[in-house]
Amino acid sequence: MTAPGTVYGVGVGPGDPELITLKGYRVLQRAAVVAFPAPLEGDSLARGIAAPHLRADVQGIAIRMPMTASRFPAQQVYDRAAEEIGAHVRQGADVAVLCEGDPFFYGSFMYLFARLAEAHAVEVIPGVSSLTAAPAVCGLPLASRNDVLAVIPAPLEEAVLAERLGQAEAAVVIKIGRHLPKLRRALAATGLLDNARYIEHATMTTQFDAALTDLPDDHAAPYFSMVLVHRRGEAWRQ
Amino acid sequence: MTAPGTVYGVGVGPGDPELITLKGYRVLQRAAVVAFPAPLEGDSLARGIAAPHLRADVQGIAIRMPMTASRFPAQQVYDRAAEEIGAHVRQGADVAVLCEGDPFFYGSFMYLFARLAEAHAVEVIPGVSSLTAAPAVCGLPLASRNDVLAVIPAPLEEAVLAERLGQAEAAVVIKIGRHLPKLRRALAATGLLDNARYIEHATMTTQFDAALTDLPDDHAAPYFSMVLVHRRGEAWRQ
Repeated sequence: MTAPGTVYGVGVGPGDPELITLKGYRVLQRAAVVAFPAPLEGDSLARGIAAPHLRADVQGIAIRMPMTASRFPAQQVYDRAAEEIGAHVRQGADVAVLCEGDPFFYGSFMYLFARLAEAHAVEVIPGVSSLTAAPAVCGLPLASRNDVLAVIPAPLEEAVLAERLGQAEAAVVIKIGRHLPKLRRALAATGLLDNARYIEHATMTTQFDAALTDLPDDHAAPYFSMVLVHRRGEAWRQ
Repeated sequence: MTAPGTVYGVGVGPGDPELITLKGYRVLQRAAVVAFPAPLEGDSLARGIAAPHLRADVQGIAIRMPMTASRFPAQQVYDRAAEEIGAHVRQGADVAVLCEGDPFFYGSFMYLFARLAEAHAVEVIPGVSSLTAAPAVCGLPLASRNDVLAVIPAPLEEAVLAERLGQAEAAVVIKIGRHLPKLRRALAATGLLDNARYIEHATMTTQFDAALTDLPDDHAAPYFSMVLVHRRGEAWRQ
């Protein structure tokens, strides 16, 4: 009987393939099978980040999810992916699940973890998330001393955004996409618009950042974009 | 005339030396000089994490800081360290500043960055922070979907802790140390005590974690400890 394999949830980092950890890199170099989130059609971002580190003969499991999935079809997609991953593991293969950024920071890996962790050996390898990559490339310290830092998803309602922005010393608004105009209004309402830095695709070749007040009103923000804001503005330099 | 060197702020990750990024690892392998925070007496944690990756002939600059430093002696320590680092860079050496976790996530690197970034080339290499390493080793997803995640320093006053804990779907309380009894009271006041997981030294050989309700009242929490809490408790497994 073959000894069963292990599932590794590997944080591949924010985009630059060099921002994976040594530990993740070593798992990817060995893995016979990788699973990765992907859109219904087209390429997987996580697979693209990991590509330079994978075996030439690696087997791929694309977990294809409609971007607007309601809860129940999504559950079926995760059920099926977990079955497929489990079958490989039972046959003795290690399976690396590629996760953009970090596996447990607003990622979909938790849904696979919930389905796999009781029956199989699952190891989670943390990664650099965009939460810290964006401040690094912008040269903007994120939080210090006794700051409360809030991570706020942009799809929340405008009043909730404004309320949460008003409560924190430092905030990172994530998943901006089509919510940019609403976010601008919420930042203006809390007097923080002038302190806001916009960044998309941090550490990727397509990286772009600007003061939010310099960004055209009709800028098409992708899903992987964020706004960094701190009450102190530039006062930390003193 | 020698071309000047570069200052690299390198996130060395939460403790396991394998959790440094490939990019950080390559900088450390080459760096002639490393600077690192250290207590007034004794070893530097960041230096210890990076040790397996450093050159045998590396020169060290210990930035020794009293743990209870008030603002003004601390500024003198950073002024002096920035001068020393700047002198190496002007002579053409690259200097890696070792940062526990990530450089801009509640670290002291921002004070050196503020002093060095105008006169010298400074590159910030993000790292895995304990914020994501602790959930990974506990097998506890941190945040998902439209959760607001709050990072809350434990030195804040009890009423502030309770208020901030009450506002977020997910919270990570950092820098616990002697503030553990106060934090327990704040969690009890917000009804979240049963949802709280305590972890110290995540990914280090001294790692320890427990449900907060199982932790003895007199447990001596170190500075590098945290509590993870989520309103959903274990409901994410469903």
